[in-house]
Amino acid sequence: MSEDAPSLRPRVVIVGAGFGGLQVARGLADAPVDIILVDKHNYHCFQPLLYQVATAVLSPADVAWPVRHILSRQDNVTMLMAQVTGVDRAAQALITSEGPIPYDFLVLATGATHSYFGHEEWAPFAPGLKDIQDATHLRRRILVAFERAEASDDEAARRRLLTFVIIGGGPTGVEMAGSIAEIARHALAPDFKRVDPRTARILLIEAGPRLLPVLTEPLSAYARRRLEAMGVEVLTGRPVVDIGADHVELAGGEIIPASTKIWAAGVRASPAAQWLGVETDRAGRCLVGPDLSVPDAPEIFVIGDTAAVSDPAGKPVPGIAPAAKQMGDHVAKAIEARLAGSTAPAFRYRHDGDLATIGRNSAVVKLGRLELTGFLGWMFWGFIHVYFLIGTRNRIAVALAWLWNYVTHQRAARLITGEPEVSEAESKKPPLRQAS
Amino acid sequence: MSEDAPSLRPRVVIVGAGFGGLQVARGLADAPVDIILVDKHNYHCFQPLLYQVATAVLSPADVAWPVRHILSRQDNVTMLMAQVTGVDRAAQALITSEGPIPYDFLVLATGATHSYFGHEEWAPFAPGLKDIQDATHLRRRILVAFERAEASDDEAARRRLLTFVIIGGGPTGVEMAGSIAEIARHALAPDFKRVDPRTARILLIEAGPRLLPVLTEPLSAYARRRLEAMGVEVLTGRPVVDIGADHVELAGGEIIPASTKIWAAGVRASPAAQWLGVETDRAGRCLVGPDLSVPDAPEIFVIGDTAAVSDPAGKPVPGIAPAAKQMGDHVAKAIEARLAGSTAPAFRYRHDGDLATIGRNSAVVKLGRLELTGFLGWMFWGFIHVYFLIGTRNRIAVALAWLWNYVTHQRAARLITGEPEVSEAESKKPPLRQAS
Repeated sequence: MSEDAPSLRPRVVIVGAGFGGLQVARGLADAPVDIILVDKHNYHCFQPLLYQVATAVLSPADVAWPVRHILSRQDNVTMLMAQVTGVDRAAQALITSEGPIPYDFLVLATGATHSYFGHEEWAPFAPGLKDIQDATHLRRRILVAFERAEASDDEAARRRLLTFVIIGGGPTGVEMAGSIAEIARHALAPDFKRVDPRTARILLIEAGPRLLPVLTEPLSAYARRRLEAMGVEVLTGRPVVDIGADHVELAGGEIIPASTKIWAAGVRASPAAQWLGVETDRAGRCLVGPDLSVPDAPEIFVIGDTAAVSDPAGKPVPGIAPAAKQMGDHVAKAIEARLAGSTAPAFRYRHDGDLATIGRNSAVVKLGRLELTGFLGWMFWGFIHVYFLIGTRNRIAVALAWLWNYVTHQRAARLITGEPEVSEAESKKPPLRQAS
Repeated sequence: MSEDAPSLRPRVVIVGAGFGGLQVARGLADAPVDIILVDKHNYHCFQPLLYQVATAVLSPADVAWPVRHILSRQDNVTMLMAQVTGVDRAAQALITSEGPIPYDFLVLATGATHSYFGHEEWAPFAPGLKDIQDATHLRRRILVAFERAEASDDEAARRRLLTFVIIGGGPTGVEMAGSIAEIARHALAPDFKRVDPRTARILLIEAGPRLLPVLTEPLSAYARRRLEAMGVEVLTGRPVVDIGADHVELAGGEIIPASTKIWAAGVRASPAAQWLGVETDRAGRCLVGPDLSVPDAPEIFVIGDTAAVSDPAGKPVPGIAPAAKQMGDHVAKAIEARLAGSTAPAFRYRHDGDLATIGRNSAVVKLGRLELTGFLGWMFWGFIHVYFLIGTRNRIAVALAWLWNYVTHQRAARLITGEPEVSEAESKKPPLRQAS
């Protein structure tokens, strides 16, 4: 059969090569279908380690792997790099930058992006962390702040430049705060001559009563103690009411001058629901049926962070990689069941646990009744993440980068790349001190 | 002495943290001076390996290292990340984005950029390779071309997308051509389903009579044979007369449809001469005196690719790292001599040799009378480059990446990052074949 001859096999179009989308493609490896996997990038990004790209521990290539290569041995998959703009449900076609793609089954696994709770004007001042571009952008902002502080002669400007505010006390916020504290205290400290990076102020602000609310109270309290021991100021029960180029304002009126703000507080689903014209929950996630298909369209499935799904106890399924993978497995089986003329069972989420790393030698892990903290939790966290990385090369590269960082305290990827973006307040600088 | 107290020591301001600028700073480590090293980036880039970033072998962080870290143990250096816009010779101050910086001695080591010989309109179609940004941009172009070919149903468009034209037969052109041939034939070949990357056409075009003109004729001929064996079409004596979004035109009228063009043909100096208002040669390089200082300004030195210097035999000093380093050494000594009240000797360039790699197991090396080719030349090339990399971590990372590439034929950094840039001709695509 020539490559371009029409196929008689049903076509499954999957949008998104994240944890969920990849799992669907792999689950259909032996099914009599033709799969087209569409993504705007050519790589699968391992989001749980993105914060280490943002804080210069890892390079982008360490946490990303070409989708083509992951699926190169699976003959029934074609990968297409394209931007999706909509779904023509009447014509059963996905609308993309490379033209329409007809489908027999459609799986939308397009993930989530940042949500500023109606304050989209905060986005340029407090970027979030969802993809490789976000990570290198944050890396630039963090490293540039130290550079500008070194160049500044104004004490107030220096303080502002050396203040880092992380908004949101979930795993990403905790991990970013810990990692920025470490880069300031150790990796950068010996290299600056005019400012002392160890004096950097790092604030982690959470609107709710405690950090890491998915974990137990003792684990939350442990995470807080560890962060405070590393020099992070943790503020809980303090909603943010305003963010500008050079400040964060908390409820109650306290204003914190800060050049670098990082948003780790909220996400909303990708626009899959708009493409389909289906109902959503408040976070923009598609309301799906028990088998994860869309109401009135059994051939369309929505999975991962862009689907609103509850576990058997009625609790919302969290937006984490294992949940997306389980949904991907389910949809692959559901499509096979349909092709075999039977109906798909209902999806049942199984929660394995939660974990977050805080810094060198400390992490919190909860797996069923097992709780780990400290060095043991940290080693467990590391092994799990290396294990789930895709590709031998990335596992070796990440393990070596961590070993290097552990032994030397150095960060291997301290590069400021991308276009400079100077905030208005920082662009006017007094001259350096005059030589005598 | 407080950090900000006025210093009584003369201030040396160095612009550019490349091979030349770094060498000046290091050469003055024990001199009674205060050094300010200014660069627009926070890293020193190891340009000889940039082509491996452009062809996805290495990550940017493997060939770059924070300047602050390199100089962290040298107490008399302050590093400033800033954009330089001019020199106020009357006030003896460097003009930068962070304000004016007064100097007692000024060293401009600002390198070179691409020259299109008066055809600057070719720049967007045929980008060159001078810094990390250029390298990731080229990497994007090369990888996107294969992606678009896979998505295209038009045979002429596929051919154009799979045609890569490298203009300029010097070391960079030879290295890029060889590396693109290898990525197409090996790393990408198994991962594409609708096109065969091994059918990619790779052309290396040189206006002069032979490749690598700085080497002997037998070495040039060897390089050509090796490239041809790897599937590269080598055209010599063929000047390029036009470059557009989708083609290259050669003298004589031949038009080659090609989506990806890479410029490796000419460089011109950075605008140091304009900042100083001094005379230049045709490539824009400052004409300097025998001690590398500027006429009528013994306190201003220009070195590296932005200075026009001849060797004792009257031949122009080539724009390579060893030459920049020798000039840096010389200027450090010249400044020390001035401070001691004596005059600096004339600079004498010592040419150690030339080398270029072609591909797996083949390189050409000429060191004095010693000539190496094949596996031996290739090993020598590799050891020399790892040896001259800065930092143990980068040496290990590069050596491991090469080992990985050698054993698996895989490229570790196959990421398409940065903003999409779709050429007009490629942006309208027919739909993918219909499912039956």
